[in-house]
Amino acid sequence: MRNQIDLLAAVTVLGVLEQAYFALQVIYARRKYKISPPETRGHPEFERIFRAQVNCSEYFPIFISLLWVAGIFFHQGAAAASGLLYLCARFQYFHGYAQAPSRRLGPLYASARLLWLLLGLAVVGLLGHFLPLGALVADTALGRQLRRLLGW
Amino acid sequence: MRNQIDLLAAVTVLGVLEQAYFALQVIYARRKYKISPPETRGHPEFERIFRAQVNCSEYFPIFISLLWVAGIFFHQGAAAASGLLYLCARFQYFHGYAQAPSRRLGPLYASARLLWLLLGLAVVGLLGHFLPLGALVADTALGRQLRRLLGW
Amino acid sequence: MRNQIDLLAAVTVLGVLEQAYFALQVIYARRKYKISPPETRGHPEFERIFRAQVNCSEYFPIFISLLWVAGIFFHQGAAAASGLLYLCARFQYFHGYAQAPSRRLGPLYASARLLWLLLGLAVVGLLGHFLPLGALVADTALGRQLRRLLGW
Repeated sequence: MRNQIDLLAAVTVLGVLEQAYFALQVIYARRKYKISPPETRGHPEFERIFRAQVNCSEYFPIFISLLWVAGIFFHQGAAAASGLLYLCARFQYFHGYAQAPSRRLGPLYASARLLWLLLGLAVVGLLGHFLPLGALVADTALGRQLRRLLGW
Repeated sequence: MRNQIDLLAAVTVLGVLEQAYFALQVIYARRKYKISPPETRGHPEFERIFRAQVNCSEYFPIFISLLWVAGIFFHQGAAAASGLLYLCARFQYFHGYAQAPSRRLGPLYASARLLWLLLGLAVVGLLGHFLPLGALVADTALGRQLRRLLGW
Repeated sequence: MRNQIDLLAAVTVLGVLEQAYFALQVIYARRKYKISPPETRGHPEFERIFRAQVNCSEYFPIFISLLWVAGIFFHQGAAAASGLLYLCARFQYFHGYAQAPSRRLGPLYASARLLWLLLGLAVVGLLGHFLPLGALVADTALGRQLRRLLGW
C-alpha cells in the first residue's frame, strides 16, 4: 500500500511545512507591529499577512483532499507534481500579498488553476474507475500507450 | 483498495466542488459591494456570505475525516449517502444565511445532525473493529442478517 | 488494511469530538454575551473563545495530515500516542485562552512541539521508505532491536 501513496505523503508533509512557515510569518508580523492575539487588526501589512495565511489555511484541506483522490484514482506522479507546483504558487501568493494586495492575484490564479487541474485528474480518475466505458477506452491502442507512458 | 473507497472519494470531490462554489460566491459579493481583500467587512450581505463560507470551510476537514472513518470502518455506502445529505444541507445553509441570519438555522441543525450521524457510524464501526464483543454480536443471527443486508 | 490504521482512525474521531466541544463553547459564549452571527466581536471573553476555536480549527487539518503520514510511514502506535497528547494540549490551550491570552502560551507551545514531533516521525518514516540507506540502517543490529521493540 505504501508504494501507491508515498509521493502523496511526501507532498503532504511539504505542504504542512509551508503552512508552518506561513504561521511563523504571522507570529513575526504580530511582534513587529505589537499586535497581540486575539486582535487581528492594527496595521495594513499585518492584516495582509494574516489574511494570506488564513486563505492558505482555508484551501489546505481542499488541496490535500484533491491531491490524494487524484493520486489514488488517476496517477500518483502526476498528482504529486501538480501538488508541488501548487505549493510553489502558494509561496509566491503569500509573499506577493505581504507586499501589496494586487501582487497576490497572479499567483492566486495560478494556484486556482492547479487546483482545477487536480480536480480534473480526480474526476477523470473516478470516471475511469466507475464507468465501464473507461475500461473500454483504456483497452484501445491509445489507452495502452497512455498507460505505458504513465507507468500504470 | 480502490473499490473500498471509491464512493468516499466521489463524495469528497463533490464536497470540494461545493467549497469552490461557495468561494466563488464570496468573490462575486466582494465585486458587488466593492469590498477588496484583506477587508472582511463593509456590507451586511457580504458579511453573511463571508461568514457562511468561513463556517463551511471550518467544518470541511471534520466532515471529510468522519466520512472516511465511517466509510472504512462502518459501511462505505451508508457513509457516502450521509455525506451527500450533508452537502445538500450545507448548500441550503449557505443560501439561507446569504438571505438572513435566521434562515441559516434550520439547515445548520440538519448539517449538524448529519455530522453526528457520521460520528455515530464511525464510533460504531471502530467499536466493532476493536471489541471482541463486536465480533460476537456480529456472529449472531441478527448480525449475519444485517451484514447480508449491508453487503459486508 | 484496517489494522494498520485503526488507532489513527480512533484518534481522528477523538479529535473531531474535541472540535465539536470547542464549537459548542463558542455557541454558549454567543448566547452568554448576546453576540449573534455574523458578528465576531463585542466582548473580550467571547473574542478569546472565538479566536481559540478558530486557531484549533486551523491546525486540525495539519494535525490530521501529520498523524496519518507518521502513522502509516513511521509507526502507528507512536503517532497515535503523540496525537492523543496533542489533543490534551489543545484542550488546555482552549481553556487557558478563554481565561486570559497569556494562559494560552504554555499549552500552545506544547501543542506546537507535538506537531513538530509528528512531523519528525513522518519525515523519518518517509526517508526510511525512500532511501535505500534507511533499509541498510534498519538491517544493523540496532535497527533489528528497534524494530523488535516497536513491533514492526
